[in-house]
Amino acid sequence: MSAARVARRPVITFTTDFGLRDPYVASMKGVALSICPDAALVDISHEVPKFDVRAGALIMAQAAVWFPPGTVHVGVVDPGVGTARRAIVVVSRRYAFVGPDNGLLMLAAQRDGLRAVYAIEDEELVLPRVSRTFHGRDIFTPVAARIARGLEPERVGPEIRDYVLPDFARPRLEGNRAVGEVMYIDGFGNIITNLPEALLAQLGLRDGCELSVRLGQRELKLKLCSAYGQVRPGELLAIIDSWGMLEVAVNLGSAAERLGVRPGERVEVAPEGSL
Amino acid sequence: MSAARVARRPVITFTTDFGLRDPYVASMKGVALSICPDAALVDISHEVPKFDVRAGALIMAQAAVWFPPGTVHVGVVDPGVGTARRAIVVVSRRYAFVGPDNGLLMLAAQRDGLRAVYAIEDEELVLPRVSRTFHGRDIFTPVAARIARGLEPERVGPEIRDYVLPDFARPRLEGNRAVGEVMYIDGFGNIITNLPEALLAQLGLRDGCELSVRLGQRELKLKLCSAYGQVRPGELLAIIDSWGMLEVAVNLGSAAERLGVRPGERVEVAPEGSL
Amino acid sequence: MSAARVARRPVITFTTDFGLRDPYVASMKGVALSICPDAALVDISHEVPKFDVRAGALIMAQAAVWFPPGTVHVGVVDPGVGTARRAIVVVSRRYAFVGPDNGLLMLAAQRDGLRAVYAIEDEELVLPRVSRTFHGRDIFTPVAARIARGLEPERVGPEIRDYVLPDFARPRLEGNRAVGEVMYIDGFGNIITNLPEALLAQLGLRDGCELSVRLGQRELKLKLCSAYGQVRPGELLAIIDSWGMLEVAVNLGSAAERLGVRPGERVEVAPEGSL
Repeated sequence: MSAARVARRPVITFTTDFGLRDPYVASMKGVALSICPDAALVDISHEVPKFDVRAGALIMAQAAVWFPPGTVHVGVVDPGVGTARRAIVVVSRRYAFVGPDNGLLMLAAQRDGLRAVYAIEDEELVLPRVSRTFHGRDIFTPVAARIARGLEPERVGPEIRDYVLPDFARPRLEGNRAVGEVMYIDGFGNIITNLPEALLAQLGLRDGCELSVRLGQRELKLKLCSAYGQVRPGELLAIIDSWGMLEVAVNLGSAAERLGVRPGERVEVAPEGSL
Repeated sequence: MSAARVARRPVITFTTDFGLRDPYVASMKGVALSICPDAALVDISHEVPKFDVRAGALIMAQAAVWFPPGTVHVGVVDPGVGTARRAIVVVSRRYAFVGPDNGLLMLAAQRDGLRAVYAIEDEELVLPRVSRTFHGRDIFTPVAARIARGLEPERVGPEIRDYVLPDFARPRLEGNRAVGEVMYIDGFGNIITNLPEALLAQLGLRDGCELSVRLGQRELKLKLCSAYGQVRPGELLAIIDSWGMLEVAVNLGSAAERLGVRPGERVEVAPEGSL
Repeated sequence: MSAARVARRPVITFTTDFGLRDPYVASMKGVALSICPDAALVDISHEVPKFDVRAGALIMAQAAVWFPPGTVHVGVVDPGVGTARRAIVVVSRRYAFVGPDNGLLMLAAQRDGLRAVYAIEDEELVLPRVSRTFHGRDIFTPVAARIARGLEPERVGPEIRDYVLPDFARPRLEGNRAVGEVMYIDGFGNIITNLPEALLAQLGLRDGCELSVRLGQRELKLKLCSAYGQVRPGELLAIIDSWGMLEVAVNLGSAAERLGVRPGERVEVAPEGSL
């Protein structure tokens, strides 16, 4: 990571559940610029649902991998702040991640290729006075900014192997059905499942096919489209989306609202008529 | 445009209807920094009402013209993503605009001085794998970042002349009345019309005048003020605002809420008593 | 300030009540980059409650002090725009602040160490055409960007001493009680008082103590914790937070919602049983 990193402009991203009204996000950015003045600071999201580590991990994983090699990603969805939960630096193939050891960072790191996890223990690297409630400002950001400036991640403390992994359902094939769950509902109301294109391909399902979809208790017949606009406004469709996953959507509308679906609901997909 | 552009720090702006919770905006910024690492990335708005090309065009047009020459503006309000609608680069006097060919970019370009429109056809300029649902990340941003780095816009593909123009009502004089419509309601609840200061001046209307205003079915007597604070808190007023347009406002309050007005409603203005 | 400032990358921050949907914030940033192209532009908040100068002052004061020396902070919560209220530059130990003379900037400046206040009178420094309603774009940002580039703040106009100061209650001791008020409710629903750690220490109150807290009409027994997670999910606690103030919170929940508390309510704190 280092060679790529120091060769380019430092980039630091931020993913939190802080919202944008309060002074918290800007306080982190002030600290970052104080330590690494030439960094590009980019928000991934500050609207992660409060305390929702799983949603934060999904948002981070989806956005982080589009950044240049050497980017340092800070994540702060941290209900355990001030307790014994560790602060960690996670090194993946191209990136470093800094945040709490609660699973938030691991999905993105795994997607990029996990290399090592270090516990932050060197008190010289954090702010002189660490508050009880805001380690994003006092610990994670100072460490991230130092790494963005060139500090080797392994300098922050000992490597650990008992880090917390997030708990996500794995999609699988059961006979002629792909079985998974609703992973995320986006701001358009698109229902994003954890069923990847490759799994559907194993069932012979590709653009233009008719699908039988079971979403919780609902039974749907949907066409696997290659554009939202292939059905009429207000109609349901299925599509392989920008997450690379099967998505249930409404053209010019909200599928989540129409169907009353929530993250975590079970999803089953099969060729039409065979569910 | 090019001379001005390459002489300064590259600037790329983003206008979308994506909202700020989801990973979509940050994914575009990661792509932009991967291609043009020294760019300044600036959000115009990500809260354009979903699928509302007209509102997006207005917001873009109002903000874009304040940016330095050479700025590249990306717009993504794109209900037709994945259909036959083209991806385009629009060149104006000082700027380049990149987005869908649905009218979104044209108001800003016209305001700056439209020069030419090109269809994006060179597949070398976009991401290796273009998704079905997110051309903002896979097509528009990579092209914008290359232009910000120095690519000549005419290199993206053939010039086209049958681009889509947005459909906006033109304000006009009818006898002693200026006739137009409500163009935009801002976050303060200010009712922004499409009646420019110059049109009102043709009726002899200037600061201090009393106006008769018809807003849909409502008849109002309003003073044309030079500051919101010229009427008491909670009182209605008219003012030439920062858009350069006639605005109906409430001092320290929301005119849109008070009057129940929506974009698109007809507006008539005349000297007091002559409506 | 100047020496520190010119030695680093210019940083300009923005705090407004504009929200993020409208083109106003981006218009200011376009102006800033036109004048000072290499500036880092950082949002403190654009979700200050509309016209709420006091909340804006608190948010600015809390975030501003984390930025590098030389940072120029623009504040625009400006209900008096266009009236006789002055536009000012405030110089503190490490920063310059630019905005309206209504108290918005003074809390942050005082916290950093107030040095001097200047009225903006030099019309060469602002945009050629100043609108009636948007001095953030037409006056404050151009002046801020020039200061970020190196303009000496005293060049903007005469020093003034009759600037507006914000009106905040001062916390105090009354016998064995600390008396103050609710200063801010953050997005987590944490109730942030204006009672600093040092004042509580004078009463012998430190982490682990049991407190009697009167919040408006409510009487609470709370433990002064060092982490939210020291009580069970859903339980109330007290904590010295990242503002350095006594905060009433709910672990994994919203104390403001639970208790129905609003900014400005009276707070009294004493050792348990002695209120």
